[in-house]
Amino acid sequence: MKIGIVGLGLIGGSLGLDLRSQGHQIIGISRQENTCKIALQKGIADEAGVDFKLLADVEMVFICTPIGAIASTIEQAIPHLNPETIITDVGSVKYPIVKSCNTLWPNFIGGHPMAGTAESGIDSALSNLFKGAAYVFTPTEQNQPEDVEKLKEIARDLNAIPYVCDAQIHDRAVSLISHLPVMVSTSLITACLQADPDTLELAQTLASSGFRDTSRVGGGNPELGVMMAKYNREELLRSLYSYRDNLAEIIDLIEEKKWQDLEEILKSNGEARPKFLN
Amino acid sequence: MKIGIVGLGLIGGSLGLDLRSQGHQIIGISRQENTCKIALQKGIADEAGVDFKLLADVEMVFICTPIGAIASTIEQAIPHLNPETIITDVGSVKYPIVKSCNTLWPNFIGGHPMAGTAESGIDSALSNLFKGAAYVFTPTEQNQPEDVEKLKEIARDLNAIPYVCDAQIHDRAVSLISHLPVMVSTSLITACLQADPDTLELAQTLASSGFRDTSRVGGGNPELGVMMAKYNREELLRSLYSYRDNLAEIIDLIEEKKWQDLEEILKSNGEARPKFLN
Repeated sequence: MKIGIVGLGLIGGSLGLDLRSQGHQIIGISRQENTCKIALQKGIADEAGVDFKLLADVEMVFICTPIGAIASTIEQAIPHLNPETIITDVGSVKYPIVKSCNTLWPNFIGGHPMAGTAESGIDSALSNLFKGAAYVFTPTEQNQPEDVEKLKEIARDLNAIPYVCDAQIHDRAVSLISHLPVMVSTSLITACLQADPDTLELAQTLASSGFRDTSRVGGGNPELGVMMAKYNREELLRSLYSYRDNLAEIIDLIEEKKWQDLEEILKSNGEARPKFLN
Repeated sequence: MKIGIVGLGLIGGSLGLDLRSQGHQIIGISRQENTCKIALQKGIADEAGVDFKLLADVEMVFICTPIGAIASTIEQAIPHLNPETIITDVGSVKYPIVKSCNTLWPNFIGGHPMAGTAESGIDSALSNLFKGAAYVFTPTEQNQPEDVEKLKEIARDLNAIPYVCDAQIHDRAVSLISHLPVMVSTSLITACLQADPDTLELAQTLASSGFRDTSRVGGGNPELGVMMAKYNREELLRSLYSYRDNLAEIIDLIEEKKWQDLEEILKSNGEARPKFLN
């Protein structure tokens, strides 16, 4: 298949490497000439350039820009595309993107390959980045089932595991398991930093695996954290309100010394957690 | 040195294994005859029994019972001890223990070896459990400096790193880095479990390392979680109130779309976190 990839960073570059090695013909588009050059050198694309005209006869286009640039990138691509072309994106939020892009292009199908590293940019592109990862697609009623099948087939070419679900359910689920943890975790770091100097110094000395794991995602990429909050704001707020209520209940139980009730919560959470670990 | 260990579980048993291998003479005390038998078989103690009389001429006693039994165990041991004997404990909370035990025995010095596994009981006792771990002592003005030195020397025999600090500062620091994370983390699991069935199913399918790490300590031993809350209640509540305020600020910033301020918090937390990781 002839496939276009617009945005040749970590995700776009890694898609190119794997899909090209599966025999697909890859057309890479970047705003930067230099990135195009690197894409050709690294074997990410068969052809690469800054001009959207290169997308004239591709069957499928992956938009791999930052979330905020997806819709405007599609608008730039549209004049050059065959009307049959499937457009998909790789953004980590789906409902707002699907809503705006479906209007721009009826054959738009939202996608979210759940893989990544702490790096970004074309130099961080990796083979097998998607191996074993979930790849979620969020088609709407206006999409053709055979187009969804084509995307699932591409996910399988990447050795990823395709899932199909509603865009809003996707956003709600990732707000809970991915975006909420960042806010929960960063608030822990802030609370520790607000201790008096003697306590802070001892806390820094004694902190071990419990603090390390619970604070990990809260100490990660700040731009990514803001993106999550900005583009999945409504669902993240809903998750934060639910979290805040649950924390308030824990505080109540400790204030009222209801140790049996606290133990019940800890116990049922300990039993429920393995269902989230694959 | 002739050393008594009362309570032969994970910590008491592991102390016995290492201290005995360092040439100390270990007297083990347990409420259960069978545990004493295992202690002798495993090389945890030179002598072991249920009778506190065995402690008659030890120089130092480690009380390794659960926190709630420390004071009553010391009361049982007192009639048999030489008045010079140093008593120490291994509880993860120090101020309330030091307060009550110092009154019972002037040569009591609180201790907290910060090591452990998810297991408990004598069968889980391990050599080198304390290697590289912090071992905190919380003496008061009534203790003799040379007794504190003896305990620090024992910590070094265990290849642990001894620290000396105020009991209340200890409790405040561990409430932040160890007890607060449990409550923060378990509330995350509760929030996820309260999602509607479709979202919950997808969340369970898609959850990956971010959820896994942030939820780890909240899905751990429920009895241990309750112990933390029960015995370090005041400091844990203080930490929870501070955490709640910080979370409320994050929620405010997201509600008000103050993305720059949110990014500042995430950025400064990301920069501060490495100081907690050794």
